[in-house]
Amino acid sequence: MKSTARNPAAVDSPLFTAFTEELEICARDLQEYLIDRRYLDRFRPDSMGEAVTLYVQSGGKRLRPAILLWSCGALGGDVRTALPAAAAVEVFHTWTLVHDDIIDRDLTRRGADTVHERFRRVAESRYSSVPTLDSVHYGTSVAILAGDAQHGWGISMMTELSREYGVDPAITLHLIEVLDNRVLNLLVEGEILDLQFARVPIERLDIETIEGMLWKKTGVLYRFCAEAGAMIGLGRPEEEHPQVRALAEFSSRCGIAFQLQDDILGVLGDPKRLGKPVGSDIREGKRTTVVRYAYTDATPAERELLGRTLGRSDAGEEEIAEVVEILTRRGGVEKTRRRAQQHIEEALPYLEELPPSRWRDLLRTWGEYMIERSL
Amino acid sequence: MKSTARNPAAVDSPLFTAFTEELEICARDLQEYLIDRRYLDRFRPDSMGEAVTLYVQSGGKRLRPAILLWSCGALGGDVRTALPAAAAVEVFHTWTLVHDDIIDRDLTRRGADTVHERFRRVAESRYSSVPTLDSVHYGTSVAILAGDAQHGWGISMMTELSREYGVDPAITLHLIEVLDNRVLNLLVEGEILDLQFARVPIERLDIETIEGMLWKKTGVLYRFCAEAGAMIGLGRPEEEHPQVRALAEFSSRCGIAFQLQDDILGVLGDPKRLGKPVGSDIREGKRTTVVRYAYTDATPAERELLGRTLGRSDAGEEEIAEVVEILTRRGGVEKTRRRAQQHIEEALPYLEELPPSRWRDLLRTWGEYMIERSL
Repeated sequence: MKSTARNPAAVDSPLFTAFTEELEICARDLQEYLIDRRYLDRFRPDSMGEAVTLYVQSGGKRLRPAILLWSCGALGGDVRTALPAAAAVEVFHTWTLVHDDIIDRDLTRRGADTVHERFRRVAESRYSSVPTLDSVHYGTSVAILAGDAQHGWGISMMTELSREYGVDPAITLHLIEVLDNRVLNLLVEGEILDLQFARVPIERLDIETIEGMLWKKTGVLYRFCAEAGAMIGLGRPEEEHPQVRALAEFSSRCGIAFQLQDDILGVLGDPKRLGKPVGSDIREGKRTTVVRYAYTDATPAERELLGRTLGRSDAGEEEIAEVVEILTRRGGVEKTRRRAQQHIEEALPYLEELPPSRWRDLLRTWGEYMIERSL
Repeated sequence: MKSTARNPAAVDSPLFTAFTEELEICARDLQEYLIDRRYLDRFRPDSMGEAVTLYVQSGGKRLRPAILLWSCGALGGDVRTALPAAAAVEVFHTWTLVHDDIIDRDLTRRGADTVHERFRRVAESRYSSVPTLDSVHYGTSVAILAGDAQHGWGISMMTELSREYGVDPAITLHLIEVLDNRVLNLLVEGEILDLQFARVPIERLDIETIEGMLWKKTGVLYRFCAEAGAMIGLGRPEEEHPQVRALAEFSSRCGIAFQLQDDILGVLGDPKRLGKPVGSDIREGKRTTVVRYAYTDATPAERELLGRTLGRSDAGEEEIAEVVEILTRRGGVEKTRRRAQQHIEEALPYLEELPPSRWRDLLRTWGEYMIERSL
């Protein structure tokens, strides 16, 4: 795990200490805001309440709310005012996870059952006479509806910006429009491409095509978070304002780097810390840059093994270990790491557009953390 | 089909002629508004555009947009101003259909493939080497994402009320909040209950419980449509205004009647006109009032047959015909028809709260049409 460990110098620095402290404050404020009866009482029957809050309760890194709040601060806004938007993007992100987990057939997330898997088990234990396929269908159905309810939760929470926090309604309506149109449609496109790419031979996809898909799946929502916080801070829905643009560009690039790091951790990460089995990306046949780079430099025998194993849901532990070995040996991990580093290097100068502030320092560390994290 | 035919007197009346003419105008305006490149270009790749517009293009009765627009008119508003909201609720309704079709495992809607079935076929023909289960999963995945994209389309369209049609942002934000919170969560609850009820013996569900579920699945959105139109017409987000309340109560009751009529047509309707096979509700084991009423008066042998056939996805045509026969003979259809009639009779007096107008006359006929329709 040497290669994904954080740089010790960075971890010891006062900036990094301030970053982790602020991230904890952000996570705590968010949890307080979200895990509240005024929301939880909305979801009925009880099983739906459980399904909707499963991932929200389990925490997560809260990197999206953090960039939103800190972008607001960096443009001179009161960070507290942006809290409904920070909570909204986190919940919005959560529904995409719930639906993606169905699509990717993932059984675990953050060390516990995914929503559809959990309710498959519920159906199996409650209606033991029902054939297995029916339990699977029940679990999928509950997870589809739970994601739908979270989608609505996120959007309706966004309206609180104006209804309770005094933000100009023109900003709130603009944010809702962008989130549920441009952002959502790019997310969906990224997800569909991901699904379709898994059925296309890896040699027919180039690095730019794969990164384009990753940007849609991840970069777009990160971009939105920074933009939303910046506009709330600025007090105007002005996308073209130079500082709003700078923050959007910064976050967009960091978002791709985040996803590249995710793909590295999917191969090399510690399953216990990640809360999901290593090998699930390989078994699902995900077209990552890690695979693409390694394939280019692989021997014919290695290519044959990759082609045979990628996308085989019943691939054994030994085959997975062999694939991981090839992905590392043929430079897939190292080249992806360098790409991620490059994106962060391109991202950081955008912060120079902002006036110096504690928030700007936090944003810089936030960007660096994207590729230093090991979970 | 005698029992579901429209009352000839009503069909010949000038009111009914005006109603069908106005409904056609509403459908035409809506189609013009919706089927426009400014929306359609949002959805990529092409397969997503096709999935998102499949049901929207195929039309539908447009009863929800109609009550929204006419409620706006009945409260003195300019009907044109409410068009984005009418389009938004129609698209919002559409995503619930797409996701429900996955959950209900329906293969046809309006005489064509459902979204998940269509894309199962696409996967099967394009990736012929892939096993069947994978095609099913691909179809489901595309349909989940298509519904998500429609959800976002509906909400983002709602913002046009203020961004382009001059409606007070307080009204627009209120409508978004109510639609994506109260309405959505009741819809989801209704769908979950429907799913769970199918696993509960019919004798343990009473008529009120079943109607409560139907109200959540259908009545709630109808209620919202009237309320939304009324507030836009009134120019204030005032739920407790007597005329807003009256229209909401009226539409809520008509919505239940609509669903009861739907359940009758699911047993007795003409499959060609309905565009779905009769028997699908029976095969899915839907707990309708038709089934509940008939069960109460059925003989032990008939109860045994109902218990054996309801919910059996592989039930043959002959068994379905036998069940239909019992449901009719034991008064399930007739009693449900009377309940629907009763809801409409309770609904109509609410219209007396409104000043006389052409819109009020249209709303009355709209209510009567709910239980006279044969598709």
